[in-house]
Amino acid sequence: MSNFELIKELALEEKTKIVLLVMDGLGGLPLTPDGMTELEKAKTPHLDRLAKEGVCGLSIPIALGITPGSGPAHLSLFGYDPLKYEIGRGVLEAVGIDFDLGPNDVAGRGNFCSIDDGGLITDRRAGRIPTEKCAELCTVLQDIKISGVEVFVRPVKEHRFVLVVRREGLSGALSETDPQQVGLAPLPVKAVTPEAQPTADLVNEWLELARKALAGHHPANMVTLRGFAKTPDLPQMGDVYKLKCAAIAAYPMYRGVAKLVGMTLLPTGDTIHSEFETLRNQFSAYDFFFVHIKKTDSYGEDGNFDAKVHIIEEVDALIPSLMVLQPDVVAVTGDHSTPALLKSHSWHPVPALVWSKYSRADAAVAFSEKECARGGLGNFHATDLMPLLMANALRLAKFGA
Amino acid sequence: MSNFELIKELALEEKTKIVLLVMDGLGGLPLTPDGMTELEKAKTPHLDRLAKEGVCGLSIPIALGITPGSGPAHLSLFGYDPLKYEIGRGVLEAVGIDFDLGPNDVAGRGNFCSIDDGGLITDRRAGRIPTEKCAELCTVLQDIKISGVEVFVRPVKEHRFVLVVRREGLSGALSETDPQQVGLAPLPVKAVTPEAQPTADLVNEWLELARKALAGHHPANMVTLRGFAKTPDLPQMGDVYKLKCAAIAAYPMYRGVAKLVGMTLLPTGDTIHSEFETLRNQFSAYDFFFVHIKKTDSYGEDGNFDAKVHIIEEVDALIPSLMVLQPDVVAVTGDHSTPALLKSHSWHPVPALVWSKYSRADAAVAFSEKECARGGLGNFHATDLMPLLMANALRLAKFGA
Repeated sequence: MSNFELIKELALEEKTKIVLLVMDGLGGLPLTPDGMTELEKAKTPHLDRLAKEGVCGLSIPIALGITPGSGPAHLSLFGYDPLKYEIGRGVLEAVGIDFDLGPNDVAGRGNFCSIDDGGLITDRRAGRIPTEKCAELCTVLQDIKISGVEVFVRPVKEHRFVLVVRREGLSGALSETDPQQVGLAPLPVKAVTPEAQPTADLVNEWLELARKALAGHHPANMVTLRGFAKTPDLPQMGDVYKLKCAAIAAYPMYRGVAKLVGMTLLPTGDTIHSEFETLRNQFSAYDFFFVHIKKTDSYGEDGNFDAKVHIIEEVDALIPSLMVLQPDVVAVTGDHSTPALLKSHSWHPVPALVWSKYSRADAAVAFSEKECARGGLGNFHATDLMPLLMANALRLAKFGA
Repeated sequence: MSNFELIKELALEEKTKIVLLVMDGLGGLPLTPDGMTELEKAKTPHLDRLAKEGVCGLSIPIALGITPGSGPAHLSLFGYDPLKYEIGRGVLEAVGIDFDLGPNDVAGRGNFCSIDDGGLITDRRAGRIPTEKCAELCTVLQDIKISGVEVFVRPVKEHRFVLVVRREGLSGALSETDPQQVGLAPLPVKAVTPEAQPTADLVNEWLELARKALAGHHPANMVTLRGFAKTPDLPQMGDVYKLKCAAIAAYPMYRGVAKLVGMTLLPTGDTIHSEFETLRNQFSAYDFFFVHIKKTDSYGEDGNFDAKVHIIEEVDALIPSLMVLQPDVVAVTGDHSTPALLKSHSWHPVPALVWSKYSRADAAVAFSEKECARGGLGNFHATDLMPLLMANALRLAKFGA
C-alpha cells in the first residue's frame, strides 16, 4: 500500500479547517557568507510566533539536491509524488487560463516570435507584445481550420498563448520547435514516439498555416511551441483527503495545478491583500485553503533580495487577519527555494511551520532556515506535509488496531 | 523513475570541480559515557571552518541500524543504492589489484592457511606470511591446469590472494570453504543454485590440486576461498553524472569499487600526504575526485582511539592544501562509522559536511557527530550526497517546469 492509499483509507470527515500558505520560492541564501537569508532578514513577528508555538522543519520538495519546477514542487506539497505524477507544461498553462481540457486534448505552450524574411528568428518573444495584442492574434490563429481535428488557440500573457488540439488518439510525445536562440529558424515538431507521428503531422500542418496567417503581423509574425502534453489522470484531493478544497492563487500556473488535483478555484485579485480578503470571505465554505503568494519567487528570480524580504514582511503583516478566522491548522512554507543570490529556483530545503493546538512546540523560536533546521519535524519530504496537516486537524483515523 | 534515472536526466556538463574526501570509518563513539568521540577529540580547525561555512548532517549509509561493509558503504556514497547494486567481495578484491575482470569471470578471495597432517586448520591465516611469500606461492598455484577453463591466481597482501576462473556460463553462486575456526577441515565449495554446480565442481577440482601443490609449503600448505562473484553491470559515473571522475585511494578495495563505477584510478603513494599531492598534481584534469583515507578505519578496527584521532588531525592539517586549489564543492564524510570502542564497523550515522559558495550555512559550528546532528542536512541517506554535490556545483538542471 502506498502512503497515498493509506491516507485515503484513514481520512475522516470533520469540521476542522486547514490553511496551507505557500510563499513561492520562500527559501533563500545569504548574499555574503556571514549574512542572512531573505527570510532571516525579514521582520516577521507573526510568523515567528507561529513558528515558536508550532512545529518547524525543512521541507524537501523532491529529493536532496534536486531543484524542482513549480509544477512538481506543488504536487509534492499537495501530497502527490512528483516522480510518479507528471504534468506537462502545456497542460498546466491550459488549465491555468481555465481552459476546460478533455481526455482527447493535447496542449502545448506557444510563444509569438519575430522572424526575418529568411524565416530566421530575430526575437524569441516578439518584443513581448502586450496581452491585448496577443489576444487579437490568437483570434487570427483560431480561424485556421484543419480537417478532422479541433484546434483551440487561447492567449495567456504578453507573447504567450496555449494551443490545444483535440481528436481521439492524439499524443503529447512531441519535441519543441523553439531553437532556443535567435538567428535560427523555428524547428518542425518531431514525434518522440512512433504513435505521436499523426499528431506531429497535424501540428506541423498547423504551423505552416500559422506562418501564413501571421505574415503581415510583425513583430509577432511566427510562433514557437513546446511543452506538449495530455491531461494526467490525477487522484482528486476531495476523494483522497475528504476535504473540500479551495485554491486562492492569482497566477495561472498555480491555479492550473490546483484545478488538476481537484481544488475549487476561488476568484481573487492580483494583490496579496486581495488573496487574504478572498480567504476571509470564503472561509466558512471550505475545509482546506491553498493560498499562493507568487512574488517571493518572482523577486528571487529577479535577484531582488530586498524586494523578496519586503514581500515576506507584507505576508507577515496579514497573518493576524488569518488567525482571527480561527483556523484549526496553519502551515506556512514554500514550494521550493528561490535565493536572490542564484536568481533561480534551487535545491535547498524549504522552511516550514505547522501550527495547531496539537502541533507540539520544538526548539525553533523564529521562522527562518536556521531555526527550522532545528525544528521538531527535521528534514522531511514535502509529500509528508498533507498527512501531517490532516493529523493536526484530527482528520486521520488510527492505522491498524 | 528512480532517483538515479532522474539524476542522469538532469546532469549538466559544467567546469565546476567537486572533491569528495572520505575518511573511512570516520564516525565514532566516546570511550566513556561523558567522553568525546574520536572526531570530537581531534583538533580540526580547518574542518571546523568548512563545517561552519558549509552545511552539515549525518549520513546514513544503508538504513538506520545497518552496519555496512566497505563495498556497499562506498556504493552509497557514489549514489548507488547498495541494496540494488551488489558487488561480491571477490570481485572487489580482483579489481582492486588491477586484475582486468571480464564478463565470463568468477572471482573469489583466497587465504593461505595452515593445516595439520589430518587436514585440519591450525591457522586460518598461515601465520600472515609476507606478501613476497604469497606472491611466490601464487606462481605455484598458477601452474595448476584444469582443462577447458582458464584459472588465474594473483597475490593481494600477506596471506590473501585472488582466484579467478574464466569460462562461459560460470556462476558466482558458491559457498565459502573457510570453516571460520581452527580444528576443522576446509569445506568443499557448494553450489548455492543448481546452475552453479559445474562451477562448484571445477573449483573443488582446483582445491584438491592446490592441496597437493602446497603440501611442502607449511605454514601456507592449504587455502580457503570465499566471496565468489561475477562482475556486476554497474552504471558508470561518467554517464550518470557527466563528470570526469578520478579516484585517489591507496588501498586495493577502494580502488576496486571506484573502478567498477567508472572512475579513473590515479597512481598515488601510501601516505595521506602523497594522496593530497596526487590531488594537487591532477586537479586540472578531472571534475570529480574521490579521495580515500584508510587509516581512520584501520585504527578504529584496532581499537586504537588515539591513533584514529591523530589520523583525523593529520587530514585536517592538509585541508588548506586542498582549499588552495579552489574547488567549487568539497564534501568530507566517512563511508560508515568505525568506533574504536567497538573495534569494528558500526551502524552509527556518519558526520558529513558539504561546503560550497551556495551550501547555506546552518547552526553547526564544528565538524563532529553532535554538531552535524543539528546541521541543515539533518539525517540523510548517503545515496543523496552525490545529487547534493552536483547541485552545489550547479551541475543539475531543474526538474519539471
